Amino acid sequence: MIRNIKVEPLTETPVNRQQIELVERKGIGHPDSISDGLSEAVSRALCAEYIKKCGAVLHHNTDETQIVAGRSCPAFGGGEVIQPIYTLLVGRATKEFEGVEIPTDAVALSAARQYLRKHIVDMDLERDIIIDCKLGTGSSDLRDVFRKDSVPFANDTSFGVGHAPFSELENIVYNTERQLINDLKKKVPGIGTDIKVMGMRDGDEITVTVGCAMVGRHIDDMDSYISIKQQMNNYVHDLALKYTDRKVNTYVNTADNYDHGSVFLTVTGTSAEMGDDGSVGRGNRCNGLITPNRPMSMEATSGKNPINHIGKLYNLLSTKMAMQIVQEIPDVEDVYIRILSQIGQPIDQPLVASAQIIPKKGTHFESIRSEANAIIDEGLANVVDITKMIIKGELDTF
Amino acid sequence: MIRNIKVEPLTETPVNRQQIELVERKGIGHPDSISDGLSEAVSRALCAEYIKKCGAVLHHNTDETQIVAGRSCPAFGGGEVIQPIYTLLVGRATKEFEGVEIPTDAVALSAARQYLRKHIVDMDLERDIIIDCKLGTGSSDLRDVFRKDSVPFANDTSFGVGHAPFSELENIVYNTERQLINDLKKKVPGIGTDIKVMGMRDGDEITVTVGCAMVGRHIDDMDSYISIKQQMNNYVHDLALKYTDRKVNTYVNTADNYDHGSVFLTVTGTSAEMGDDGSVGRGNRCNGLITPNRPMSMEATSGKNPINHIGKLYNLLSTKMAMQIVQEIPDVEDVYIRILSQIGQPIDQPLVASAQIIPKKGTHFESIRSEANAIIDEGLANVVDITKMIIKGELDTF
Amino acid sequence: MIRNIKVEPLTETPVNRQQIELVERKGIGHPDSISDGLSEAVSRALCAEYIKKCGAVLHHNTDETQIVAGRSCPAFGGGEVIQPIYTLLVGRATKEFEGVEIPTDAVALSAARQYLRKHIVDMDLERDIIIDCKLGTGSSDLRDVFRKDSVPFANDTSFGVGHAPFSELENIVYNTERQLINDLKKKVPGIGTDIKVMGMRDGDEITVTVGCAMVGRHIDDMDSYISIKQQMNNYVHDLALKYTDRKVNTYVNTADNYDHGSVFLTVTGTSAEMGDDGSVGRGNRCNGLITPNRPMSMEATSGKNPINHIGKLYNLLSTKMAMQIVQEIPDVEDVYIRILSQIGQPIDQPLVASAQIIPKKGTHFESIRSEANAIIDEGLANVVDITKMIIKGELDTF
Amino acid sequence: MIRNIKVEPLTETPVNRQQIELVERKGIGHPDSISDGLSEAVSRALCAEYIKKCGAVLHHNTDETQIVAGRSCPAFGGGEVIQPIYTLLVGRATKEFEGVEIPTDAVALSAARQYLRKHIVDMDLERDIIIDCKLGTGSSDLRDVFRKDSVPFANDTSFGVGHAPFSELENIVYNTERQLINDLKKKVPGIGTDIKVMGMRDGDEITVTVGCAMVGRHIDDMDSYISIKQQMNNYVHDLALKYTDRKVNTYVNTADNYDHGSVFLTVTGTSAEMGDDGSVGRGNRCNGLITPNRPMSMEATSGKNPINHIGKLYNLLSTKMAMQIVQEIPDVEDVYIRILSQIGQPIDQPLVASAQIIPKKGTHFESIRSEANAIIDEGLANVVDITKMIIKGELDTF
Repeated sequence: MIRNIKVEPLTETPVNRQQIELVERKGIGHPDSISDGLSEAVSRALCAEYIKKCGAVLHHNTDETQIVAGRSCPAFGGGEVIQPIYTLLVGRATKEFEGVEIPTDAVALSAARQYLRKHIVDMDLERDIIIDCKLGTGSSDLRDVFRKDSVPFANDTSFGVGHAPFSELENIVYNTERQLINDLKKKVPGIGTDIKVMGMRDGDEITVTVGCAMVGRHIDDMDSYISIKQQMNNYVHDLALKYTDRKVNTYVNTADNYDHGSVFLTVTGTSAEMGDDGSVGRGNRCNGLITPNRPMSMEATSGKNPINHIGKLYNLLSTKMAMQIVQEIPDVEDVYIRILSQIGQPIDQPLVASAQIIPKKGTHFESIRSEANAIIDEGLANVVDITKMIIKGELDTF
Repeated sequence: MIRNIKVEPLTETPVNRQQIELVERKGIGHPDSISDGLSEAVSRALCAEYIKKCGAVLHHNTDETQIVAGRSCPAFGGGEVIQPIYTLLVGRATKEFEGVEIPTDAVALSAARQYLRKHIVDMDLERDIIIDCKLGTGSSDLRDVFRKDSVPFANDTSFGVGHAPFSELENIVYNTERQLINDLKKKVPGIGTDIKVMGMRDGDEITVTVGCAMVGRHIDDMDSYISIKQQMNNYVHDLALKYTDRKVNTYVNTADNYDHGSVFLTVTGTSAEMGDDGSVGRGNRCNGLITPNRPMSMEATSGKNPINHIGKLYNLLSTKMAMQIVQEIPDVEDVYIRILSQIGQPIDQPLVASAQIIPKKGTHFESIRSEANAIIDEGLANVVDITKMIIKGELDTF
Repeated sequence: MIRNIKVEPLTETPVNRQQIELVERKGIGHPDSISDGLSEAVSRALCAEYIKKCGAVLHHNTDETQIVAGRSCPAFGGGEVIQPIYTLLVGRATKEFEGVEIPTDAVALSAARQYLRKHIVDMDLERDIIIDCKLGTGSSDLRDVFRKDSVPFANDTSFGVGHAPFSELENIVYNTERQLINDLKKKVPGIGTDIKVMGMRDGDEITVTVGCAMVGRHIDDMDSYISIKQQMNNYVHDLALKYTDRKVNTYVNTADNYDHGSVFLTVTGTSAEMGDDGSVGRGNRCNGLITPNRPMSMEATSGKNPINHIGKLYNLLSTKMAMQIVQEIPDVEDVYIRILSQIGQPIDQPLVASAQIIPKKGTHFESIRSEANAIIDEGLANVVDITKMIIKGELDTF
Repeated sequence: MIRNIKVEPLTETPVNRQQIELVERKGIGHPDSISDGLSEAVSRALCAEYIKKCGAVLHHNTDETQIVAGRSCPAFGGGEVIQPIYTLLVGRATKEFEGVEIPTDAVALSAARQYLRKHIVDMDLERDIIIDCKLGTGSSDLRDVFRKDSVPFANDTSFGVGHAPFSELENIVYNTERQLINDLKKKVPGIGTDIKVMGMRDGDEITVTVGCAMVGRHIDDMDSYISIKQQMNNYVHDLALKYTDRKVNTYVNTADNYDHGSVFLTVTGTSAEMGDDGSVGRGNRCNGLITPNRPMSMEATSGKNPINHIGKLYNLLSTKMAMQIVQEIPDVEDVYIRILSQIGQPIDQPLVASAQIIPKKGTHFESIRSEANAIIDEGLANVVDITKMIIKGELDTF
């Protein structure tokens, strides 16, 4: 059956050349990101459990983790959490299948603790956090949708969006957070995981503002704190210059007031310990960024079932296909993809898959169109590969 | 002090003339919208309480209501909720001020119940829902920001976006839900408040798909159900034609399967009773729509404090200023506004306020620029008017 | 089958003539009593629902309501709850029967709200209390025990105890609370429902100490408060003298300190609003009293299933049979009954039913023995009458 | 100041020689005992924290832990928890003292996890249990009571009771559970910690019934299960004969039905995993037993503050003084002690301390009276020693 694919040229100034561009990334320890991470970790653990017990992934959506901030007394060289962070794992899961009970809540609890232990490394799981869990069962209608040995049917009338390539600013913002955590934190343990990177480009001037929850017990005093900030500032500035020739200004923890002794210090490296609640789907899109200059989906990607949830599959697929298009078709400057499902229809047959492409100057659109069409057609045909990659943990969702 | 306002022409096909356009609205009874509505209702009640007790609105953000779906047995002519919906009101609020204790949680609870009684009219508050509440206090830093008698300081480095005018499809989608609830439900009580409207325009063909949770006890049997669907379909079709000359297709509850007796029936008029969880900020943007063809902010607008929360104020202000620009400057075809704050700076002095304008063909941009600039400058100067309107309940947030 | 009934004479000074006697009653609004009342109300509502839906009472035990105290600012002429009381309804209930789903949690929620509205009359259900609910299902073993058309089997190896008659002090303590609520509160609305009556008899001198949570909005000022206390004191003194010729001292709210303005004032008439948590089974025994001079059972009576829960049935049955024995056998001065079950055996065939009787001076024990034996035998034979009375709400449980 | 101490002879058949005697002990893994244990562990941890941070124990009562049973699939050689046990730590605690914040909830959480890890050894804390926490602050009145450098004032008008010595049956029941856990479980890991021992003596025949939640993963199959039961039965029988010359019958898990494969198997060694909720103060009294033939207090001992909570101090003190009396005064056969406080009065000056003593035949009561009086007087004078022992963990509370 022929798929409804529309590829159209877009007459638009590419984001990278618009006057004002805004990009944001919430780091892995931001309360919203913790919610995302927990939701996805729970979903992956459920997938593994379902496959082990039932031979197939059963219906679930664990995409509603709510974090209620705690209360803390941070201090240089120490500090402690006063009121533990409260985390409520929320969602739906199939709890029984052909007489076998699936320990969905126990699996969720265990997966959540493992995730935190691995990623929110400065949190003491014995006393800093309460993890509660309310997984209900789904509506019977949705459960019917799951079938083995066939292309699943869309869970909803919904859509996903994606774009490529990253602009300079997008690259800078994304990699700033990634490198601070994966590289610099290894040498500077006082850097917390709750890093918020806000990038603005005004013409040819880029400003990167980093807000980072520092970890008190790894920082001796105010001098050390200031020194670490300076180190981070230099690091971010150097990193940005790898991605752009534009002028770059960088700032770290601009709200600090040394005179009042008011700095961004925490016990656990995340502001969830003190006043910042968190929810799934309110932070980064599945490409890791918040990009108000780009089309975005409101759908949370994390925690949704990887079998037929459009809000997850089509966002990830759109992004993957957009990246493939810019890699394989040199004449494409920018591409936006939107895929719209129809509830109850096979997910490889969306109502429409639309690509808007800004071609490079002086190129011929018809060849772009047919190549892009082919990539999209193939991507949809192999949509279940996305499912497999999600289950294996090969795709980030935030 | 001069504000940093940038008005630039945008070379772009207006959304209304792009090939594919997608627009969605989640109705007032959708679980995400209930979360939004509860969050905003709680914030408004807190504002009133703070003003009564302290003469000024104190710090709070109640923007994290989590709804955990219940379980129900719907039936024609009756039905009942089996497992009540669980609702957790989450957020931060100032609980003491100059020795006076503020009953934040009691006020929140009461406001939530009043909101549900008024808007989710088919829900039995005695047995269908549990309302729990966890309002913590904020971080001390944020509390310092609140001062009377001066322009508040931005709570964060963040941004808001807005656009105008609504496209045909946006008008259709928005008004479909509004009119079904405000007009048709009065005559047809079987219509539930959980209405999801998905609009797609493919060239000159518009498809409007309505998913509506019907209320079993107001519907006698399957024949009545089918008849109501037909009535809704006609109503929506007629309504759409008021906003467009394009071809319009309309569908209601397309996932129904009469043979299996599987239709979208509920007890309370919302799918929160059975399998659909809900969160704040994952549904409609503050203009009432989800518009992946447009720039959007990820920030939840509902429940945030109306004094200095950029995610609330700048989204509402951008939208309001965009509408004013298209009303007052006839040469503007489409306008997008983005305002970016700097944490700790006065909210009437954003880091940048950017307007991208698609002018009508053959118009002169310089006059547009200066007029738009003036409107934005005035809007920012009077940003506290937004605060006042929010407190009075004059601005919708979802 | 012959029942194992043992009636033995007890050589013991009757409580009424021992040197020191202590008796306590927690009033209906005491946090522990609210827990008891809610638990029993939920059980009764479930019984009604089960009978309606299934024709028989199914397995449940809702005997674990936990009340977490709130926080309040009481004041003469007003006051308000700051932090609502949190109530968690806990227990087990059968949720499905022959394909019919039973709305156990919705029924529990509704029953709890009705109970509070009726009995804790000064509480504002819109803002003063959160009612949460976690009813699980039971273990399968226990579910097997329930059979219609036969004497149920004991749920556990457990026992119940009862005694009669009430001593003078027991009568005074019990009726003090009952009359203050049922009679005096009607005229003096400032009297709260959380009344704790502590009685001590030292030889021939009786001291009755009443602690009563007064309701601020019904009391104008300190003078009125003091006046109400005096009125209560006189009332209690007069009431006590109806039951005894001994000397009686009475005290009300002895911890008040007028100089510091520290009096026992509340908003809702119960200390659950401020600092006093509550649990099931930690207050009055099923005869309405706490009597450390008497044998007592640790089993909570409230909320347990009235079909086969020994901790409920045998406590109520023992008490009822003890009362019958003193009514029908004039030679009995005091009687104590203990009934011990064996798990899995019919409840009309306990392992042993033991009566210890203090005969009046100069009486012949053999005739007492045979009469008592007959009453106990008949009581056990008709044990299901207790079940019926519980379901109809004819027996108090605390 | 002279204390009001009353020592009177009691004319009563000692329990050990009454016809029917009932004694029960809930083992350390029984849901009610887990609640007790958690509550006391939290209180002890708070005491240590208060002393560390403030130099004195501040007001708290953490005596309301509620356990909501989970759901499990036990199996020989394995099994798993399906729905984690939910535990709510409830109580009051002082959260701030002279500007220092006390991390009461974090301390409670950590203490609870440590307690479970140490005592409920077969539970997997990563997935089998959720620990939630709601510690509020107390009422201000109570907080005033705490003073250093003086005898504390009673928190309430309340009483404590104690008796000594243990009867034969009491010794058997108590030690059966203790030895099964502390001795036999070391060799037979399949024995769970949820052991309920019910003892009945009918004249000279003693029946001990043990209900024990076996741990599936340590038991290969039904044959092993039956063999372990036999081993336990022999062990209990031998142990009982160390305490009595009467005839002893012993039973283990009498509700098992091998034909139906229905045996008392668990994953975690406690029935809290499947259907049995738990509360504080509903199990053993502070002497480790439930003894309906003896006077008992309804007050929960576990979790209460050890400074001035009468329900804790006077129960422990009464028990300790009773034991001292029988040790030091050979002529005493049985002694019962009751101490009644007056709210607001120093705890070493109770309203009355009453001892009822059954003297041995042919003894002179006056010398007993004076010796007992002296012991009680000294015990009250040194009541704060009880506080110290509690804080050091030297006194069991259940």
